[in-house]
Amino acid sequence: MRNDYPSRTGATPQITSRRDPVLYDSQWQNCPYGEDAARQFDEQGFCFFPELFSSEEVAALNREMQHIRQDKTLRQHEEVITEPGADDCVRTVFDIHLFSAAFGAVANDSRILDFVHFILNDDVYLHQSRLNYKPGFRGREFYWHSDFETWHVEDGMPRMRAVSVVLALRENFATNGPMLLVPGSHRQFVGCPGVTPRDHYKQSLKEQYFGTPDDKVLTDLISQCGIYSVTGPPGSVLFFDCNLMHGSSSNITPHPRSNAFFVFNAVSNRLVQPFGATVPRPEFIAHRQG
Amino acid sequence: MRNDYPSRTGATPQITSRRDPVLYDSQWQNCPYGEDAARQFDEQGFCFFPELFSSEEVAALNREMQHIRQDKTLRQHEEVITEPGADDCVRTVFDIHLFSAAFGAVANDSRILDFVHFILNDDVYLHQSRLNYKPGFRGREFYWHSDFETWHVEDGMPRMRAVSVVLALRENFATNGPMLLVPGSHRQFVGCPGVTPRDHYKQSLKEQYFGTPDDKVLTDLISQCGIYSVTGPPGSVLFFDCNLMHGSSSNITPHPRSNAFFVFNAVSNRLVQPFGATVPRPEFIAHRQG
Repeated sequence: MRNDYPSRTGATPQITSRRDPVLYDSQWQNCPYGEDAARQFDEQGFCFFPELFSSEEVAALNREMQHIRQDKTLRQHEEVITEPGADDCVRTVFDIHLFSAAFGAVANDSRILDFVHFILNDDVYLHQSRLNYKPGFRGREFYWHSDFETWHVEDGMPRMRAVSVVLALRENFATNGPMLLVPGSHRQFVGCPGVTPRDHYKQSLKEQYFGTPDDKVLTDLISQCGIYSVTGPPGSVLFFDCNLMHGSSSNITPHPRSNAFFVFNAVSNRLVQPFGATVPRPEFIAHRQG
Repeated sequence: MRNDYPSRTGATPQITSRRDPVLYDSQWQNCPYGEDAARQFDEQGFCFFPELFSSEEVAALNREMQHIRQDKTLRQHEEVITEPGADDCVRTVFDIHLFSAAFGAVANDSRILDFVHFILNDDVYLHQSRLNYKPGFRGREFYWHSDFETWHVEDGMPRMRAVSVVLALRENFATNGPMLLVPGSHRQFVGCPGVTPRDHYKQSLKEQYFGTPDDKVLTDLISQCGIYSVTGPPGSVLFFDCNLMHGSSSNITPHPRSNAFFVFNAVSNRLVQPFGATVPRPEFIAHRQG
């Protein structure tokens, strides 16, 4: 299969124009949140809806999250990732839709699925789900990256036809390491320097060193596009394109920054052999059957 | 000398009420920035003045900063601290008032000194000065701390009668690791767990592990007081009490967050033997003669 999006080839990093649509349904009047939302997603690569879920719904999900985090038997699972240097500090739980019926229901909620179907204009499946619990005091940063870059190189996602949905379980303040987006960056594919080490994922889930763009490229991109800080109350939902550049700073406040992530992929865009790694990553990170 | 502010004694951390004034001149009408500024400093422990220095003044200081950072011969000096894991990335330059006449002039500027004299109501000297250049992309966090806690335990500062002045050389955005203050926290002394290792300063200037409060204390303090994020354009000046709890997150943006720090101490509050360390730290970190 031709590789339209080369990255980590060892060569000088390249910037490639996106060769895929952003919105696969060209009839913007079909957008469940209106044409303005469609236009914003197309131009900026994301839409943010404050308090799309009610405080009662979010309270129930927070209780569910606490159960999952406190369940010591779960820490033996490879789906459960702890903070670097703190094994009792759960940072991420993958496959949250399988561990929990309540989170599974979120992934099937029409407030989420209708917009996802409009964007991808295909049947969809969950490529990945996870609970990101960025703890207070010692929540580490996630460096800048495009998810698609990783999914393409390490998992074999062929095209940019996937969308991420983030449900805020706790308030995302400006000070507790909120997601930082580069609006409009989804229209360029930023190839990354270096090559992918074997079993890279075991390290990269804790700290990211490969699959990150170089300083010059980031400086140019952010001077063009700026930075949008995703802040809002619990229950807010962010939809963002798979190729949007994003990251987050550390969290030294006492306020955990907890979000549930759901990544939907079009069935026509199922994973093939990775474009830059010899061994595909495990199913819990990148579902191949879905 | 009696120790009113015990910390790092190995015992359970204590919270002690402040036993020193915040404003040493009780005639608030003497405050060069007005009685409201005096009241705010007294209650909150800080005052922030946007664009107190002009853009021309700041541009000249930025040029000076670039010279200092690019001067490779300076990197041999112990006053120059690099980022953890990146020796070519200068994070802090101490004694900036001695390395540079331009920064020395800032420390003597009446816009700064008049308020400092009002707060401390004594002759003053520079306890410490430094240039904090939090670089873009890889600027690490500073964990929560009270400067006085360190100065008392490691340097032998007897009383809370010192004030820090921060001049913003670049814009401090919400996203590039701005200083986070806990308003009102200067009225309590938060003793820290642990004891101080020998030559701790060599490590603590890069990453702070000792002299930091425990989670429970921070949670209570911040739930009472909240967090103030110090954001503003270049030329803005922050005055803050030596015992104000503060910290900052990491900086993954391309925008360096550069500030010049000047700490003024009252001559009546000169350093004595450290209250919790056997060997005082070097002069460039804590001037004993001044």
